Amino acid sequence: MATTRLDVGRIRAARVGIDPVFLGSPFFGCEPLGARLGCGVGIKLETANPVRSFKGRGTELVVGQLVAGGQRDVVCASAGNLGQALAWSGRGRGLEVTVVASRFAPRVKLERIRALGARLELVDGDHELARERAAAIARYDGIRLLEDSLDLETCEGAATIGLELVESGTPFDVVLIALGGGAMATGIGQVMNELAPEVEVICVQPMGAPAMTRSWRERRVVTTESADTIADGVAGRFPIAEVLEDLLVVADDAVLVREESIVAGMRLLMQDAGLIVEPSAALGIAAVLEDRERFAGRQVATVVCGGNVDLDSYYRWVGNK
Amino acid sequence: MATTRLDVGRIRAARVGIDPVFLGSPFFGCEPLGARLGCGVGIKLETANPVRSFKGRGTELVVGQLVAGGQRDVVCASAGNLGQALAWSGRGRGLEVTVVASRFAPRVKLERIRALGARLELVDGDHELARERAAAIARYDGIRLLEDSLDLETCEGAATIGLELVESGTPFDVVLIALGGGAMATGIGQVMNELAPEVEVICVQPMGAPAMTRSWRERRVVTTESADTIADGVAGRFPIAEVLEDLLVVADDAVLVREESIVAGMRLLMQDAGLIVEPSAALGIAAVLEDRERFAGRQVATVVCGGNVDLDSYYRWVGNK
Repeated sequence: MATTRLDVGRIRAARVGIDPVFLGSPFFGCEPLGARLGCGVGIKLETANPVRSFKGRGTELVVGQLVAGGQRDVVCASAGNLGQALAWSGRGRGLEVTVVASRFAPRVKLERIRALGARLELVDGDHELARERAAAIARYDGIRLLEDSLDLETCEGAATIGLELVESGTPFDVVLIALGGGAMATGIGQVMNELAPEVEVICVQPMGAPAMTRSWRERRVVTTESADTIADGVAGRFPIAEVLEDLLVVADDAVLVREESIVAGMRLLMQDAGLIVEPSAALGIAAVLEDRERFAGRQVATVVCGGNVDLDSYYRWVGNK
Repeated sequence: MATTRLDVGRIRAARVGIDPVFLGSPFFGCEPLGARLGCGVGIKLETANPVRSFKGRGTELVVGQLVAGGQRDVVCASAGNLGQALAWSGRGRGLEVTVVASRFAPRVKLERIRALGARLELVDGDHELARERAAAIARYDGIRLLEDSLDLETCEGAATIGLELVESGTPFDVVLIALGGGAMATGIGQVMNELAPEVEVICVQPMGAPAMTRSWRERRVVTTESADTIADGVAGRFPIAEVLEDLLVVADDAVLVREESIVAGMRLLMQDAGLIVEPSAALGIAAVLEDRERFAGRQVATVVCGGNVDLDSYYRWVGNK
């Protein structure tokens, strides 16, 4: 089997470095949703923690290592969730955190980054511009740049979700993972490949932000000129080569979904699970909605990965029925 | 110290009889909500499981014992959540479940009880009439009647929430518990009394359904002629003497809240935690809203105990902002 940068031994070992508030998230069957979709639906819920996304698993590892190495500062680019998580983890261990984000990011994400005590710098462009600016700050100020999905801790943190899925004892045939930079997809995918190779690993990305999916299909880095999706958490345009290589090993498929399917998925998670989630968290349900036959009668696990959404946008998209 | 029918040793031992899907629920700080309320808010989330309420903890114990004892049937009265949980637990172990409920119970609760394979009988009256009818069925058919809060397993199951709160390692000064029949309040209260006596145990009930609170205050069973609250899960009128006796030992206070505070609490849980909850689950937040001074600067744990609510009612109460 081809290797990746990840392995389960390291992922298991990493777990002790993560605050338990991020671990052991619920994994439960949602029968009403399954009945609508014609398959079993297991929700792995990553929103019931202090930062309302899975990103804390990774930032706990990052910050632990930086502090152990005597670092006092860190900078990252963030679509909004990584920044919150890094701010939370940094605050707890006395690390100064700078977050660079697009000024078009959801207000709730920007407000929370500030409220958690990080320095927030906004760029007048998209996430890729924020990445450039964060790298420049790191070079200029000589501080550590955290790069989501490239830095192994971000993948290993996310991979602990995979360990929990496997250890739950609840069988599932497929796992649907939101695909952005690739930390969660490669992390969970690695665990499935090693511990549950019979589980199909499917990455899901919006049609409006397809760079990593196209790259996976063409087996080379493909960038896009723009990204146009409500799923702000996965709206990257420049895939990272090392992450793509890992993804090519661990993912069984990568699919693209329409915006209206994402909205329909958000609506179903509200109706049947009482969860108000951000668009990226509904990508898995969207994938089922777009290809019911593929999933019919199977047990599908989907990671509800974030809940940071501006309510006015949410209700404009979803309505309230 | 006065004794109750409960003890932590038994509660600890009970845990092995509960499906893990109901255990280890999230307990996390919600800082945006805390900032609004002027206190630390820790949410113990009991809605991310197959029945979207805490009741599965107790029904797992009940059904385990009944099956071990060779029983094949059980009947209960339910406001809607106990019935779902009993149906879920019974289905898994081949026990026939009959649920008696008010025909005025939320549609989603009645639909889910049916979908889980239980026999559902509706009464044209409130929960107290359902209790009478369930008792009659048990007598007539010679099958076991499960009585919420009176049957120790229901209290012990709920009490495992208290164990998890204490074991979380996250300090808190106060725990706010929705008060209905009293299983959750006596169960969690018992754990606090034994393991964390410094924690203030406050029960919260709607002003429109105050029977148990009045009973606690007068130290004798007080019934009411009617109950009028949107918090259908706690709308009993006839407190059980044995449960009241336990509650008198373990509760530090019992408070009543207005309907508009319950609605405001539901709205805050949506805005700041992305959770659509049923009214009973917002009683704790309602109590803080009604007496901010009492909780100012303290660390408050509140059990978000159920999420089964009809969405049309929900949005009629709460709006979507």
